[in-house]
Amino acid sequence: MVINKASLTDQIYNLLKQKILQREFELGQQLKTRQIAEDNGISLMPVRDALRRLSNEGLVDNKPRVGFFVKNFSENEINDILEVRKMHELYCLENYFAEINRQEIKKLEGKFEKNSSASFFNRYDIKLHQEIVKASHNQYLIDSYFKLINHFTMLFNYLNHKRSKFSRQEHTELVNCILNNNKEKAYRLLYRHLDRVEIAADAKLD
Amino acid sequence: MVINKASLTDQIYNLLKQKILQREFELGQQLKTRQIAEDNGISLMPVRDALRRLSNEGLVDNKPRVGFFVKNFSENEINDILEVRKMHELYCLENYFAEINRQEIKKLEGKFEKNSSASFFNRYDIKLHQEIVKASHNQYLIDSYFKLINHFTMLFNYLNHKRSKFSRQEHTELVNCILNNNKEKAYRLLYRHLDRVEIAADAKLD
Repeated sequence: MVINKASLTDQIYNLLKQKILQREFELGQQLKTRQIAEDNGISLMPVRDALRRLSNEGLVDNKPRVGFFVKNFSENEINDILEVRKMHELYCLENYFAEINRQEIKKLEGKFEKNSSASFFNRYDIKLHQEIVKASHNQYLIDSYFKLINHFTMLFNYLNHKRSKFSRQEHTELVNCILNNNKEKAYRLLYRHLDRVEIAADAKLD
Repeated sequence: MVINKASLTDQIYNLLKQKILQREFELGQQLKTRQIAEDNGISLMPVRDALRRLSNEGLVDNKPRVGFFVKNFSENEINDILEVRKMHELYCLENYFAEINRQEIKKLEGKFEKNSSASFFNRYDIKLHQEIVKASHNQYLIDSYFKLINHFTMLFNYLNHKRSKFSRQEHTELVNCILNNNKEKAYRLLYRHLDRVEIAADAKLD
C-alpha cells in the first residue's frame, strides 16, 4: 500500500485533534513531536505539519524554541468563548424558536437521562445546541458559531465532567420545552444553563 | 530598486481590495487578469495570486474556467450578513453600554452632520459601530465581528449611498444618545437603524 505524505499528515492530524477534543490530554500538556512520531511509527515532518495545523486552528499553542502544547485557557478566555456561544444561542432561541427542527430534537428525547458514556453525552449535548443555532438558517451566523465549535467542544469536555448530573437534567428539560413549544421556559433554561457552565468554568479554575 | 514578487502581490492585492471596498467596481463586475496586469505594468502571476487571496476572503468570486468577479450578494446573503452584524451590535449595546469608550465617541461628534465625502462618512460610520462592539472587551466576540468587517464595508458602501441623508441623522442621534447615557433610546435607534439598512438592501435589489 502506498501512503503519501499528505495523507500521513492528515491521519496524524485527525488522531491528535480527536485526542485533544476528547480530553485524552491535559490542558497545557506538552505534545512531544519526537515521541508522537515514534509512537505512531512515522517521521517527524508529518507530526510537525499536523501540530502547526492544529496551532492555526487555536487548539495547540506553538511556543517558538520550546515546543507544542495543548491549548490552555485563561479564565478570561473561557468566559469570552462561552459568551460568544451564549450570544449566538440565545439570539437564535429568541428569534427562531418556531424554526427549530423538532424531528431532530425528538431524536434526543431520553438521551440525556440514560447512563450513556461521556462521549455519547457530549455528542448529544453539542447536537442540541447546534440545532438551536441552525434554526436561524443563516449560513453566516452558523459559520460564525462553528468557527468556535472546537473550542466549545474542548471546554465542554474539560469542564462538563464535574457537573454532568446537573447537565443531564438541564438538557432533558430543554428538549422537553422545545417539543412542548414552551419558548419562555426554554429561553430561561438555556440562559440559566449557559450561566451555570460559566460558573462551572470559574469553579474549575479556583 | 528591487521589487520582490511577494511585495508586488501585496501591492496589487491592497490596491484591488481598496477599490472593491470603496465601490470603484460594480458588484459582480468581472476583474480581468490580463487587463489589470497591463494597467499596472506587471506580470499575470502576482495579479492571479492577489485575486485568489481576495477570493479566499470572500470579496471575489473565482469561477473556474470563466474568471474572477467582484463578489455579488444575493438578497438572502445580504440579509444574513446584516443579521450577524445586528446580533453582535445589539448584544454589545445591551450588555456593555456603560463600557463604550466615550472619548472615542466624542471624536465622532458633529462628524455626521458635516457635508463630508462618502469615504469619510463611511470611515466614521464603521468606527461608531466598531466602538459599540469593542465595548465588550471580548476578543473572541470582536474577532467574530471583524471576520465579516470587509463584507459589512462592501455592503455599507454599495447600499448606504441612496440613504446617506437619513443615515447621517441616525448616526448623529446615536452619538448623542451614547454621550448622554441614554441607553434605551440608543438601543431603539440602533435597532431601527439596522432594520433600515435591511430595508435599503431590499429596496436596492427590487
